[in-house]
Amino acid sequence: MGHLDNLKLVIRRGCERTVVRVGDVEVGGNRVVVIAGPCAVESWNQLLSTAEFVKSQGASMLRGGAFKPRTSPYSFQGLGVKGLRLLAKVRDKVGLPIVTEVMAPEDVKLVSEYADVLQIGARNMQNFKLLIEVGRADKPVLLKRGLSATVEEWLCSAEYILKEGNGQVILCERGIRTFERLTRNTLDLSSIPIVKSVSHLPVIVDPSHGTGRRELVKPMAKAAVAAGADGIMVEVHPNPDEALSDGPQSLRFKDFAELMREITPIVEAVGRRL
Amino acid sequence: MGHLDNLKLVIRRGCERTVVRVGDVEVGGNRVVVIAGPCAVESWNQLLSTAEFVKSQGASMLRGGAFKPRTSPYSFQGLGVKGLRLLAKVRDKVGLPIVTEVMAPEDVKLVSEYADVLQIGARNMQNFKLLIEVGRADKPVLLKRGLSATVEEWLCSAEYILKEGNGQVILCERGIRTFERLTRNTLDLSSIPIVKSVSHLPVIVDPSHGTGRRELVKPMAKAAVAAGADGIMVEVHPNPDEALSDGPQSLRFKDFAELMREITPIVEAVGRRL
Amino acid sequence: MGHLDNLKLVIRRGCERTVVRVGDVEVGGNRVVVIAGPCAVESWNQLLSTAEFVKSQGASMLRGGAFKPRTSPYSFQGLGVKGLRLLAKVRDKVGLPIVTEVMAPEDVKLVSEYADVLQIGARNMQNFKLLIEVGRADKPVLLKRGLSATVEEWLCSAEYILKEGNGQVILCERGIRTFERLTRNTLDLSSIPIVKSVSHLPVIVDPSHGTGRRELVKPMAKAAVAAGADGIMVEVHPNPDEALSDGPQSLRFKDFAELMREITPIVEAVGRRL
Amino acid sequence: MGHLDNLKLVIRRGCERTVVRVGDVEVGGNRVVVIAGPCAVESWNQLLSTAEFVKSQGASMLRGGAFKPRTSPYSFQGLGVKGLRLLAKVRDKVGLPIVTEVMAPEDVKLVSEYADVLQIGARNMQNFKLLIEVGRADKPVLLKRGLSATVEEWLCSAEYILKEGNGQVILCERGIRTFERLTRNTLDLSSIPIVKSVSHLPVIVDPSHGTGRRELVKPMAKAAVAAGADGIMVEVHPNPDEALSDGPQSLRFKDFAELMREITPIVEAVGRRL
Repeated sequence: MGHLDNLKLVIRRGCERTVVRVGDVEVGGNRVVVIAGPCAVESWNQLLSTAEFVKSQGASMLRGGAFKPRTSPYSFQGLGVKGLRLLAKVRDKVGLPIVTEVMAPEDVKLVSEYADVLQIGARNMQNFKLLIEVGRADKPVLLKRGLSATVEEWLCSAEYILKEGNGQVILCERGIRTFERLTRNTLDLSSIPIVKSVSHLPVIVDPSHGTGRRELVKPMAKAAVAAGADGIMVEVHPNPDEALSDGPQSLRFKDFAELMREITPIVEAVGRRL
Repeated sequence: MGHLDNLKLVIRRGCERTVVRVGDVEVGGNRVVVIAGPCAVESWNQLLSTAEFVKSQGASMLRGGAFKPRTSPYSFQGLGVKGLRLLAKVRDKVGLPIVTEVMAPEDVKLVSEYADVLQIGARNMQNFKLLIEVGRADKPVLLKRGLSATVEEWLCSAEYILKEGNGQVILCERGIRTFERLTRNTLDLSSIPIVKSVSHLPVIVDPSHGTGRRELVKPMAKAAVAAGADGIMVEVHPNPDEALSDGPQSLRFKDFAELMREITPIVEAVGRRL
Repeated sequence: MGHLDNLKLVIRRGCERTVVRVGDVEVGGNRVVVIAGPCAVESWNQLLSTAEFVKSQGASMLRGGAFKPRTSPYSFQGLGVKGLRLLAKVRDKVGLPIVTEVMAPEDVKLVSEYADVLQIGARNMQNFKLLIEVGRADKPVLLKRGLSATVEEWLCSAEYILKEGNGQVILCERGIRTFERLTRNTLDLSSIPIVKSVSHLPVIVDPSHGTGRRELVKPMAKAAVAAGADGIMVEVHPNPDEALSDGPQSLRFKDFAELMREITPIVEAVGRRL
Repeated sequence: MGHLDNLKLVIRRGCERTVVRVGDVEVGGNRVVVIAGPCAVESWNQLLSTAEFVKSQGASMLRGGAFKPRTSPYSFQGLGVKGLRLLAKVRDKVGLPIVTEVMAPEDVKLVSEYADVLQIGARNMQNFKLLIEVGRADKPVLLKRGLSATVEEWLCSAEYILKEGNGQVILCERGIRTFERLTRNTLDLSSIPIVKSVSHLPVIVDPSHGTGRRELVKPMAKAAVAAGADGIMVEVHPNPDEALSDGPQSLRFKDFAELMREITPIVEAVGRRL
């Protein structure tokens, strides 16, 4: 406790809200941003078809993991550099900026060559060497909240990045660990108004990891927008049953279309646009 | 785990959704219900002015505690029977049904004489003798989720009430206990779509206890409605700084007016009415 | 927070440690007390054989539930008054004082007629009416820590009892709820030295509920004694596979014999006696 | 869940227990190992005096951080390479093997040149690139449990290391994050018997981080040994009030002497030696 007072860069009273620019997309402005795509890049066809579909429904960025942090060493670890190349090719073809995770300081340079936004995963929120390294990169950073991090600690991690000179930070709430067993995590939407009141940084919500269950993604995405989130990030897969990771929480195409349809009136109700 | 399969009454596939009727008010129908009032009944003037104001802004029920469960025996314990009488008199004058807490099996009969809805507080969610007793009462029951209860345990407690013959149960999410220190509890809005998908009971949200901070009540109330809640219950006080309990989370009158104004477009966005 | 300062009775600097006397047994003195018995009273034979065995191994009190708080209304709810009578008869025959739970204020008088120690279960730690009622009884009270209660809240609940005039309170740590899934609860042994440093009340540990797994009871009982606990309370059943409740965490007779054998050198190592 | 079945290396039935050898010291054998030293290396005098004192009292390894993972970028970050050099010089002079943390994959080679045991901190338990890198090093690894990691996830992280060929892994319980506010973390001693029953790896306990309070270190260290831990790791500082980090949980010299004195009979009570 007590660190909040020391966050000189993340918490500046009276300063303008930060708008992070990714190509034509603005995060933290009036528009609510939708980032969609598969958990992991698996193949050209999987990625291309997903990108084209989510773009047709109004998504403004593509997500997809090339380096995957997995609990077990025997789980699918991602395609690595090959995955990064597929992401870049799909971006060129479809025209959506790319968000992808970087897992180690020594990979920041490599991932920066392909990605439009560098994602720091929940398990790496306090990987301080990695924070420092992305703080020196010239790409925006999407910083996920650690799965047992307090809001204060999350903001301290953002401070590490800003302190190195990179002010283009997007915060991402993705659920915290509790005793509840019907969900994978407990999505803490109260962090949205807290972060927006103390900090000038934009904040988005990931209801896919935040719940771990496909049928909860739509209502929680709507709730996130109503609570003031600047965007949502959701997992979409052409065939979740065959996904190499996170199938149970991935939306099918028709689910994503429904999500976009149902989220629209909420976005308007809070005086914003998609 | 494994209790869900045994909840014969709370989880009935294919049955119609339960609509709880409290006078003219329906909970669980198309309308989103707003229950408002002070944490504790303190005086005739406090209660009356609050009731008149919240009614003027569109609230449909009045909340107020006469018996207060308090962590410390030295905290204000409520006015008891005198508080119940004040509630009944204000109801007669203002015309709002009353929700108030009952803390012990032997008080159920007494509280039922005054209240329109019997509230079971979070700390009593697994006070099984009390659940059985309100299950035998002829008043609707508002059952708060325990502060470390799983959704499954919450539904098991509702089953206790239904099993005794009282099917008029409203569930109320009020936040769970986590490690986060900037909020009093962590409001778990994902419980709303879970409960609504497995059960036929209506479910509302209490963002006042769920966050413990006045400035978070409005955004979380909006999020609750977007997530599908059938209503919200909020604390309102004419002068929170002088409240005998829960001042920091109580809305001032102007806060409540704002809440009602801002919640309206969200209610409409989900296809419902206030 | 901040309640600790107000606990005038539970926290008295400079006063002697409280020793709770139950017949010949002293809790909080030099001896480490072992309370053992079945989760629920099921039959005369089950209770008698268990009582005789645990006594033969050195247990100084018998536990057994007649009124059982159960998550589901369809689980075995205990034998009620019949169970109390069996407990009293076994006490008379075997000579062990009885610890048994009371679940409702109106039952305190009844249970007091049979029990030597009134147990307040974890789910009732903040059942304030019940606390007040046992505070007026003339029997010692064993107050379990709530499954998501802070140490401060636990002590506040003890204060409720002392405030009514009953100073014979034994605290019982029984595990708190966390995200860990290999145990039923997480036994918080650090609460022992905390409670012993701020309060004069004796404190014991229940490693059966605290872990939920038979094979963890022995090591955690030893750890509890090493941490300074004044006693342990464990579940023992002649045939755990057929127990009507809590079978997986109940010790078989031979497990209990082993426990007593292995705990002895630890008890001596901390300068105490069994 | 379900990963336990896949842990082929960490969980091998019927294999001998792993004994990790660090110079003359064996971790996981009959002796209970005591690792002691300051949180952070601050100066030659601080480190030397601590090393000499803890050795004189029976400690068998020296701990001390050169690279410090800190929540805030404005907190003391450690002396870095200079700290490593001080550690090595003190080892040469005093004769205690050194345990020190490595925070990034690219530092593993450097830290290996100085350290006898590579420590993976709680925040890096799922820094998978780092796990892989220490898995390729030829030094033993001390793997701390993440502050919200399940036992299963902890063992999965150990599997990452073993899979790369390094079987010299010591597990270290250091407390998990809960709602309790009187301690910094909740030390989960039940993880000791669980880990020892399913895995062949040695496991030690860090009661300093596990509680965050000096006065709790001694009782929890005793409890850890009683629960079956193969060792303890504690923070000791010549002048905790002036420590650059973790002062409130650091033992003074006289506290450490007391700890060693009081722990001895417990070690003997479980049939082991210091």
